[in-house]
Amino acid sequence: MSLRILITGGTFDKYYDAVRGELTFRESHLPSILKQARVTLPIAIEVCLLKDSLQMNEEDRSQVLQACERAVEKHIVVVHGTDTMVETAKRLGQADIKKTIVLTGAMVPYAIIESDALFNLGFALAAAQCLPIGVYVAMNARIWPWNEVHKNKQLAVFEQNQA
Amino acid sequence: MSLRILITGGTFDKYYDAVRGELTFRESHLPSILKQARVTLPIAIEVCLLKDSLQMNEEDRSQVLQACERAVEKHIVVVHGTDTMVETAKRLGQADIKKTIVLTGAMVPYAIIESDALFNLGFALAAAQCLPIGVYVAMNARIWPWNEVHKNKQLAVFEQNQA
Amino acid sequence: MSLRILITGGTFDKYYDAVRGELTFRESHLPSILKQARVTLPIAIEVCLLKDSLQMNEEDRSQVLQACERAVEKHIVVVHGTDTMVETAKRLGQADIKKTIVLTGAMVPYAIIESDALFNLGFALAAAQCLPIGVYVAMNARIWPWNEVHKNKQLAVFEQNQA
Amino acid sequence: MSLRILITGGTFDKYYDAVRGELTFRESHLPSILKQARVTLPIAIEVCLLKDSLQMNEEDRSQVLQACERAVEKHIVVVHGTDTMVETAKRLGQADIKKTIVLTGAMVPYAIIESDALFNLGFALAAAQCLPIGVYVAMNARIWPWNEVHKNKQLAVFEQNQA
Repeated sequence: MSLRILITGGTFDKYYDAVRGELTFRESHLPSILKQARVTLPIAIEVCLLKDSLQMNEEDRSQVLQACERAVEKHIVVVHGTDTMVETAKRLGQADIKKTIVLTGAMVPYAIIESDALFNLGFALAAAQCLPIGVYVAMNARIWPWNEVHKNKQLAVFEQNQA
Repeated sequence: MSLRILITGGTFDKYYDAVRGELTFRESHLPSILKQARVTLPIAIEVCLLKDSLQMNEEDRSQVLQACERAVEKHIVVVHGTDTMVETAKRLGQADIKKTIVLTGAMVPYAIIESDALFNLGFALAAAQCLPIGVYVAMNARIWPWNEVHKNKQLAVFEQNQA
Repeated sequence: MSLRILITGGTFDKYYDAVRGELTFRESHLPSILKQARVTLPIAIEVCLLKDSLQMNEEDRSQVLQACERAVEKHIVVVHGTDTMVETAKRLGQADIKKTIVLTGAMVPYAIIESDALFNLGFALAAAQCLPIGVYVAMNARIWPWNEVHKNKQLAVFEQNQA
Repeated sequence: MSLRILITGGTFDKYYDAVRGELTFRESHLPSILKQARVTLPIAIEVCLLKDSLQMNEEDRSQVLQACERAVEKHIVVVHGTDTMVETAKRLGQADIKKTIVLTGAMVPYAIIESDALFNLGFALAAAQCLPIGVYVAMNARIWPWNEVHKNKQLAVFEQNQA
């Protein structure tokens, strides 16, 4: 089992900048999170972008797609902002890559108390190891194929699409 | 998908008792963890035991086995102390239950900073949804069938058995 | 010894709003902080404002001043945003109230890991009990009379004014 | 203002040892706490002991006393286990040292969520700067001279002695 985590930014990885008094990006928390989680599985970490997903454009999504295609690993977790996670999942899903790709993120940054980041990352890492080839969104302890899910922005949860 | 979490105690769920100055059990952290993780999947939580796994005897393991058999859900996560997790996994594995059962735990209690509990629970909840019928141990971001794993107590990690 | 905490908002008390994806105000963390700190001293808590201190205007500062004057307690801690803390301190200092008033705040919100909020609140609560009548700023484990201090915004620390 | 922190161990500084599954001592959290608290006051840190205060004997208390006498600073905070804090305070108080010495500790270790350690340290650091010469216990947001206080072990709080 070989696995890669692609980092794109999003709420998951936001830091609090005490000088500017706002949430921003500095460097990814992923390496320290994998240490905290006592992970012994070899995992390659690749910082693809560090952006709020509302700021991501088509070129950014192409970069994520290329990183998935280029990866030597067959199992990939993409850490992504929740606002356009489904859009990136669609882009990856339509490309029909012969890998298991799981997108996840966080509603509350890792650095803030009561964050869902650690749970979601663990959840996505198991899903990426167990699921067949395809592109999935893993949030709220649920897993959806990329074309069956949307984010309910009012409730701040992901939901199954209506048939 | 319906899922049950069986709580047996272990390091995962230990509280710090400020009066006695020691780690002990009071009530499970699981309900608040599922809330923090923003879980929308319906999950039944059942407190089976609240014990250090070194204190578990054969009767305790029978209780865990019966709870697995009795469960109406086909997907079960057992939160367990790490010291005898493999022993309980063996007991469940030999019983040949037609369900997917994933045992997990924590090396550092949920209530202590830098805990692996949240990550491990997320990891196990995805594994329990994706894996075929069988009994598994899920720790350190890895998954093993019940009869292929042991705990390395010196390194405090789980490892593949030698062939 | 009777003591009052006046809450005005500021970084100290900011929450992360998962729906809007930003730091904002909801309700003060103070009551739960005093519980966590195992405080047995009777302390009155009064929410005066819940604002970013950059948003505070002269009317807001008048409200803080009136709350200090109105308080039956002789020892007051004002929890305040750091950006205009010195300005409010000046307003209170010039009013020459016969009470010990200590302003404090946080560079990192209480709800974010590695926050200085808990430390600063403890620090200010001791200062307010021990210092003679006057208005003080208490930050970075230091105490200054209101007219001897400024915030160095580049370094995000408070400093003694040059003579 | 020059200040020294004497570390003696106690609940404040306990780590969770994941291999042994218990709370123990490794190294003091104090340097990282002062960084988190954004302290700019020059503070000398001295590790005197790293012991549970129930394990402290008369020789240990003599070491604490000598460290207080030897210190070049006039303001000292002693971080101490709560169980025998009052006993050490008495030893220091009877020695009649011409310094301000404030003992504090924690009911819940710094490394455990909802710890009072950060608050208590901030509280003690202000008390040590503001109080006249003498030996004090600072806990629960209150300050007592060394001979007016005891720990109520049932309630896990410090209380004023009955007259």
